[in-house]
Amino acid sequence: MKINKLLVKTKNKNYSIFVGKDIANNLHGIFKRENINLNKCLIVVDKELPKNPCYKIINSIHSKQKKIIFFRSSEKNKNFSSVNKILDSLFRENFSREDCVIAIGGGITGDVVGFAASIYKRGIKFINIPTTLLAQVDSSVGGKTGVNNKYGKNLIGTFNQPDLVISEINFLKSLPKRELICGYAEILKHTIIANRRKFSFLEKNKNKILKLNSDIIQKAIVDSCIIKKKVIEKDERERNLRKVLNFGHTFAHSFEASLKYTKKLNHGEAVLMGMKCAIKFSQQIKCISKNDATRLIKHIDSLKTKNLKNFFKLKNIETLIKFMKNDKKNKSNKINLILLKRIGKPEINSNYSVSLIKKFLYNELN
Amino acid sequence: MKINKLLVKTKNKNYSIFVGKDIANNLHGIFKRENINLNKCLIVVDKELPKNPCYKIINSIHSKQKKIIFFRSSEKNKNFSSVNKILDSLFRENFSREDCVIAIGGGITGDVVGFAASIYKRGIKFINIPTTLLAQVDSSVGGKTGVNNKYGKNLIGTFNQPDLVISEINFLKSLPKRELICGYAEILKHTIIANRRKFSFLEKNKNKILKLNSDIIQKAIVDSCIIKKKVIEKDERERNLRKVLNFGHTFAHSFEASLKYTKKLNHGEAVLMGMKCAIKFSQQIKCISKNDATRLIKHIDSLKTKNLKNFFKLKNIETLIKFMKNDKKNKSNKINLILLKRIGKPEINSNYSVSLIKKFLYNELN
Repeated sequence: MKINKLLVKTKNKNYSIFVGKDIANNLHGIFKRENINLNKCLIVVDKELPKNPCYKIINSIHSKQKKIIFFRSSEKNKNFSSVNKILDSLFRENFSREDCVIAIGGGITGDVVGFAASIYKRGIKFINIPTTLLAQVDSSVGGKTGVNNKYGKNLIGTFNQPDLVISEINFLKSLPKRELICGYAEILKHTIIANRRKFSFLEKNKNKILKLNSDIIQKAIVDSCIIKKKVIEKDERERNLRKVLNFGHTFAHSFEASLKYTKKLNHGEAVLMGMKCAIKFSQQIKCISKNDATRLIKHIDSLKTKNLKNFFKLKNIETLIKFMKNDKKNKSNKINLILLKRIGKPEINSNYSVSLIKKFLYNELN
Repeated sequence: MKINKLLVKTKNKNYSIFVGKDIANNLHGIFKRENINLNKCLIVVDKELPKNPCYKIINSIHSKQKKIIFFRSSEKNKNFSSVNKILDSLFRENFSREDCVIAIGGGITGDVVGFAASIYKRGIKFINIPTTLLAQVDSSVGGKTGVNNKYGKNLIGTFNQPDLVISEINFLKSLPKRELICGYAEILKHTIIANRRKFSFLEKNKNKILKLNSDIIQKAIVDSCIIKKKVIEKDERERNLRKVLNFGHTFAHSFEASLKYTKKLNHGEAVLMGMKCAIKFSQQIKCISKNDATRLIKHIDSLKTKNLKNFFKLKNIETLIKFMKNDKKNKSNKINLILLKRIGKPEINSNYSVSLIKKFLYNELN
């Protein structure tokens, strides 16, 4: 299958996303055509990446001055001190804004490096090479960057679109199944809020995707990126429409935060549980038909991942609500939920009372 | 004289700049018309500001939840730790992106608060109330934010346009003459690169401006903002055209940096010396006519500020060149100079060799 190219058009910047296999062979040409000046570049690589295809990519970056630093990616290291280390490398070698920083790694690496790139001399060129399914379908698209602090996740950051994204499918081979499902959760989210027909495609091809059938997974990644890019092009700064990408996430973030981001529940698993909650809540308030809701929940359940009741009891409801109130997207203490009218048709809603949401969680956990 | 309103239109955001006297009386209406939600606001105030008109402004901000913190503005405090204190205040009270942060102070305060606002939850509303002439005519327009680090000034930051700027002329009364000249230097810079006719206005009215004749100074501030806003509207991210605002600054930054930002030479004084160098260099390479150059230098000299030879000797030339090479706007080690073809007509140029610039400095300092 040939390499796919998507063009993302935002107000400040247009950039391309390339998705495919063995992109390293074509990297030199891509950089040239995309006007990336490789005079001087800093490559920040996730320390845990398998050497191949990582070095295949690094070796095909022909830069006059190439500096590589390794980053031990973890939520704990997703902080300002890691950003500072990257900034320091750039300052020491006096990188200009026209030089570039390249991230090779998962979502954490991309977010941290992207943030550093956005504040170094008010913005240096940034190329993202996402290596996990989650990062390829979600975090590498749309320019959100950021780090955690003691108040929560991703609370400090910028909207900074990259100058180029390279999604190499070969990286996915080494991902554990749990990580693949994590990425699949976001593919599913994009599909559910955007397109009934594409949801049927996932129903048919879920297993092929999780078994990394090259053609099918490339199509799934590209489809997912297209859905997200269309939303971002209309609302880069998340003033309104972009909030639909938060489907399932208000719940999911509160699950993760309540559990202090334990590895027992990863982001994708939380999102799957969160989407189930959003669908059930939508059904309860008669927003979505029983048919659609049942079909969606059946699909989520077929992934056989985590279950809400294994993590939370009735006594945890207050904590969950507290974290739901904390969501970045909320306005003045109201809980913002993305509900579903039907497959492909989300609704941004902050009209439902805290007590109704509490009651819903009570029923789910009882 | 009535309050002037300018609209700045950038790709991501349109916002207004108000310039006038006793704006506090109209502030409530302005916030309302500009759609500023004052549900919750954090006001960061320069500690050294005179109480009146500062409190007049603060008291006319009718917010349900108003928190005030004081900031001791100095180049030394223009760092990430100050940014962190502001972020902490916001996180502690769980400000949402729709709430707002207000800076009242000079350029340093605006830059630090604006930077914090741009990275808090990827951007919270930001209102800038500049209180020095320099900040009113220059740093409050165009969305540059940032802090210093050990490698230099303003090296970490963002491009983040404010949501509203209020320039209250009453603040200027308490400024020392040296500070006024500092602001005047940037008015002069804007005029020199933009408009021959407006330069004649300055030749006639310089003394009235420095004596704070209300109508004249209001006109000078508005004119200066209009010049800068037109440049920013075309090139917010300083990809090319915006570099013309750097006129005199490549030299000026190197003067300041070589002297380790001593208070003996403030930014405006450095800019005046820098513009003189840029004009003389332009004349030397036959870019500008002798007539124009003489007229400009006469005007700068009439301000009777600092002189290059009082600060530097021949032995300092290497250091000066080193800092000129360090400028953020340079591409790959070439020195970027803004030259002048005639009054009102600048030229961005990085073709002149380091040795020619060295020779020029040698002649100036010999």
